[in-house]
Amino acid sequence: MSGAPTPPPNLDEIRRLLTDLSGPDTEAHAAAEHHQTQLTKPAGALGRLEELAIWLATWQGGHPPRLERPLTAVFAGNHGIAARGVSAFPPEVTAQMVKNFLDGGAAVNQLCGFADSDLRVYEMALDEPTADFSEAPAMSDEDCARAMSYGMLAVEDGIDVLMLGEMGIGNTTSAAALCHALFGGQAADWVGRGTGIDEANLARKVALVEAAVARHRDALTDPLEALRHFGGLELAAIAGAVLAARRARVPVLLDGYTCTAAAAVLFALDPAALDHCQVAHASAEPGHRRLLRRLDKRALLDLDMRLGEASGAVLALLLLKAAVACHTGMATFAQASVSGKA
Amino acid sequence: MSGAPTPPPNLDEIRRLLTDLSGPDTEAHAAAEHHQTQLTKPAGALGRLEELAIWLATWQGGHPPRLERPLTAVFAGNHGIAARGVSAFPPEVTAQMVKNFLDGGAAVNQLCGFADSDLRVYEMALDEPTADFSEAPAMSDEDCARAMSYGMLAVEDGIDVLMLGEMGIGNTTSAAALCHALFGGQAADWVGRGTGIDEANLARKVALVEAAVARHRDALTDPLEALRHFGGLELAAIAGAVLAARRARVPVLLDGYTCTAAAAVLFALDPAALDHCQVAHASAEPGHRRLLRRLDKRALLDLDMRLGEASGAVLALLLLKAAVACHTGMATFAQASVSGKA
Repeated sequence: MSGAPTPPPNLDEIRRLLTDLSGPDTEAHAAAEHHQTQLTKPAGALGRLEELAIWLATWQGGHPPRLERPLTAVFAGNHGIAARGVSAFPPEVTAQMVKNFLDGGAAVNQLCGFADSDLRVYEMALDEPTADFSEAPAMSDEDCARAMSYGMLAVEDGIDVLMLGEMGIGNTTSAAALCHALFGGQAADWVGRGTGIDEANLARKVALVEAAVARHRDALTDPLEALRHFGGLELAAIAGAVLAARRARVPVLLDGYTCTAAAAVLFALDPAALDHCQVAHASAEPGHRRLLRRLDKRALLDLDMRLGEASGAVLALLLLKAAVACHTGMATFAQASVSGKA
Repeated sequence: MSGAPTPPPNLDEIRRLLTDLSGPDTEAHAAAEHHQTQLTKPAGALGRLEELAIWLATWQGGHPPRLERPLTAVFAGNHGIAARGVSAFPPEVTAQMVKNFLDGGAAVNQLCGFADSDLRVYEMALDEPTADFSEAPAMSDEDCARAMSYGMLAVEDGIDVLMLGEMGIGNTTSAAALCHALFGGQAADWVGRGTGIDEANLARKVALVEAAVARHRDALTDPLEALRHFGGLELAAIAGAVLAARRARVPVLLDGYTCTAAAAVLFALDPAALDHCQVAHASAEPGHRRLLRRLDKRALLDLDMRLGEASGAVLALLLLKAAVACHTGMATFAQASVSGKA
């Protein structure tokens, strides 16, 4: 041991990790697919529940799929851009909601309780918001890399699936700018009402996103630079968690717009980087559907939700558990003496 | 007591019940809606979960909504039309699958186990299929009324919500004929591949439905006559259960195409008759989406499922339970000291 302090992480190290992603486990996939054909139902009649069971086995790297240890991770961060009046709620709500999570009073607490998922809440320097990205990059290279590394730590040993979510007043503005930077189009395509702003604030939010992306355009040399310029700490953490989950063979359920935008950074670096992820639900935030088309992902649920805090992801965990219950519990045609197709 | 035997039920008695439907409980609705505004989330951010909690309270007739005793009822019947080769599976599969339900090996067993719902399976004279409706009315007035009455018995005292489903080889043909009779259009609009028939059998199924509805057209004097002519016993039982649930203030989750088609008979008699019902999922059977448009219902889930046996309904129970968990468990802004909208 040299005794030298560990150097702080930097984004080039993250770039290196992305060159070495594991692929699907084709053996587990084949085993799960074969088992499905034996179960007492017409082929394909459970639709996406069948696909989910097979997908889980494939990305866990083993058959049968397991869901004994689901973990929900919610990352919270504050945003310099929030000072620009882009949210219907004041910035102190981020910390207040974190306290609500810790006290068990938020939606995600009730959902994790019902779905029987562990819940971890990660406060990310709430007293030190990122820089206002309409004026400067939101984060330094080192801060962004450190936030990603922090997110990687959420992938605890032995978990079977990871639900990701966020809390951060102002972060749909961050998500919109990130998507606009990564995928182009008009700023207005990516901006929505977030927690519920009025028409005038919506127009201001669009103008801010448009000007900020234009301002930083020349510096956006790769998707991680886009994350650094527009992402909050919680977005960087989510991108890190998605990457670490892939390396640990932990399938991921992404929540709504902000969470998916954070993960989309990895997609922009490698279109296969989100193959171990499902998008839990289509958010009511309109940019989310556009983003899903870019990612070629079909959300599992479509319930007009736009809360964040992993609420949609935990709801989708229920579908995953139902899928595994059917996959592992149903009788086969032979066991039940049910006649096959005529 | 007169000692006289109870006369068999007839369809006119059912028609009378339909003239006397209770409406929504506006007090429970207002109480649930008010409570929602207090919870620590932006207004509307839980989307349809909020609506579900309010809908449950409204149709249970009290606030808060309860879900301690959910009941899933699956009705099984056999169909004369099945002899015409309209299904990919032989008719004996109906009874084999009922045995599978009783043995705990089917999808609905795993789903009820996971969602913690009681399950009742009702065999409806499986050895006595309805008449082949391409030649004669499927049921007599008395048989149809008796099957509806049988379905009414599924609404046990004290249940909080009723999930309905069916099993019956040939019954998507029955559902298609019923929808075509009730709502017009072309026969092909309402016919799908059911458990998975090929192109040639699909064409035969369309031709059978078209000819049968044309043949009986003059006798279809009201929606219950359409049910009697084309419905199976399990479809009649479902229609009866939906009606009895309304009278008992038990909200209902309808499963897929066949189940919704059975309930649609009541809608055709009174467009408000299904206000206490949600459609659990949009079936992969194509006629279901068309039917949902006619009923002005938006399904809760869209997972390409087409299994029947209440599988989609029990999956939607999970959403209902999640909605109630949030509605009853979340902290209010005041309790959690979270700032409101700026």
